[in-house]
Amino acid sequence: MITFSGNPLDRTAARRDDEAWLAERRANGRVLALHEGKPLMRGDELAWLDGAGNNALFLGMDGETAVFAVETDDARDGEFRELRAVALLLPADEAAIVAAAKSLFEWHARHRFCSNCGHATTVFSAGWKRVCPSCAAEHFPRVDPVVIMLPLRGDRCLLGRQFAWPKGRMAPLAGFVEPGESIEEACAREVQEEAGLSARHVTYHASQPWPFPSSLMFGLFVEVEGEGIPDGVELEEVRWLTRDEARSMLDGRHPDLLAPNRYAIGQVLLTHWVEQT
Amino acid sequence: MITFSGNPLDRTAARRDDEAWLAERRANGRVLALHEGKPLMRGDELAWLDGAGNNALFLGMDGETAVFAVETDDARDGEFRELRAVALLLPADEAAIVAAAKSLFEWHARHRFCSNCGHATTVFSAGWKRVCPSCAAEHFPRVDPVVIMLPLRGDRCLLGRQFAWPKGRMAPLAGFVEPGESIEEACAREVQEEAGLSARHVTYHASQPWPFPSSLMFGLFVEVEGEGIPDGVELEEVRWLTRDEARSMLDGRHPDLLAPNRYAIGQVLLTHWVEQT
Repeated sequence: MITFSGNPLDRTAARRDDEAWLAERRANGRVLALHEGKPLMRGDELAWLDGAGNNALFLGMDGETAVFAVETDDARDGEFRELRAVALLLPADEAAIVAAAKSLFEWHARHRFCSNCGHATTVFSAGWKRVCPSCAAEHFPRVDPVVIMLPLRGDRCLLGRQFAWPKGRMAPLAGFVEPGESIEEACAREVQEEAGLSARHVTYHASQPWPFPSSLMFGLFVEVEGEGIPDGVELEEVRWLTRDEARSMLDGRHPDLLAPNRYAIGQVLLTHWVEQT
Repeated sequence: MITFSGNPLDRTAARRDDEAWLAERRANGRVLALHEGKPLMRGDELAWLDGAGNNALFLGMDGETAVFAVETDDARDGEFRELRAVALLLPADEAAIVAAAKSLFEWHARHRFCSNCGHATTVFSAGWKRVCPSCAAEHFPRVDPVVIMLPLRGDRCLLGRQFAWPKGRMAPLAGFVEPGESIEEACAREVQEEAGLSARHVTYHASQPWPFPSSLMFGLFVEVEGEGIPDGVELEEVRWLTRDEARSMLDGRHPDLLAPNRYAIGQVLLTHWVEQT
């Protein structure tokens, strides 16, 4: 299972504009509380609240129970904690629900005004749309595609380290997809830009919703040619690893390398490659 | 080759903020002209202009030549034509360049104001960023991921027809990816919502930049269970096809079915499936 995927809710999108239907479900709804992207926790568990207000975001149905989310700074029932810190404490299905709500709220926070005319916009569709009362433009949540790829040459893979990362932390390369390119083309551009590598063949592995704030990660393997030279802008360092070296890094046994975060798809790519022989 | 992919330009993103470098290249640059997303054509060829102004969008390098794009209503040098009408007349590499420029200009047209505070924003990075002079928020072009999938059951595939389409026109199912879901999950949700089908296994096939206005299409195959019943909202009709029926539709020989547009990835999926035996 890939962290932040596996949301078990039925989004029931057809009901998002059905105010009467939603009204019936609010009183008995379960409510996830977030503040600035941080879920409300009680110890190491989500602090679910009972009963949703009119402005709650509708996340979907859990069987007969409607599930909502609210942005609030009321921490009486627990403590707001960073999602990165609790992603692996939560059951996978709850982490995925939190991820969806976090992305939506962070989109709302940055999109209160109409990009088309500058007027303040209004929330519609139980939180899934904003509409401009002045120019009538409709605005939908952003989902920003990102490619993350493990360059492969012979029996080695290449990892990179960004300037801001702690010494020893290394991960596959990554970058945003731009308008007018496929993910395969974005992958080829990024490995060339960041490490001077020529992409020969790109293979899709898996995708992952990534709620920081609203990316969609495309995990790829890419056969490359070239030595691999860090660009000195994004990447400070690159390193070719054998499967044995990567395995010891993943197991926490490598003398000077730290693996990618356990909830990141970079770790999934690396683990998959290590397990092939 | 997938239409709108295969842009041959080196985007040279590292130079987008290098005003001196750009200034040297404008006078000898080649310039693509668009008006409201329509490229300027002379007959069936792009009407390239010479020399770029200071506000031209920098698309990248074609060898030693810098390539730019401008939004203009000046049609002295040709005629503005719909991209859908000329996509297959243009060489593939030029169609891909037009697609990138079209997506960017349509993003600019709808994003002149800051979604964070409502203030008018300013173009930066040779057209690849807008910045708010009031709140300093940076805004990047949208790329909206869409899943398009061919449902398969046994030796048949399912196509759907939307209400707005002409009678007989059928295509794979499609929908926008929402925050908090992988493409595999978006695919499963869409086939359930639109046709009442349960997804069993999703396979990635290819991606395609889709400049109407700025989508990124993910072409998928999905093994499904269920009969397939159109939702009556998006889809008016669904139909299971054998490979022979799909082949005759693709060849234009089917008595009452019309294939998807030739430049759409739906056609690529269908052709790939037909060619498997």
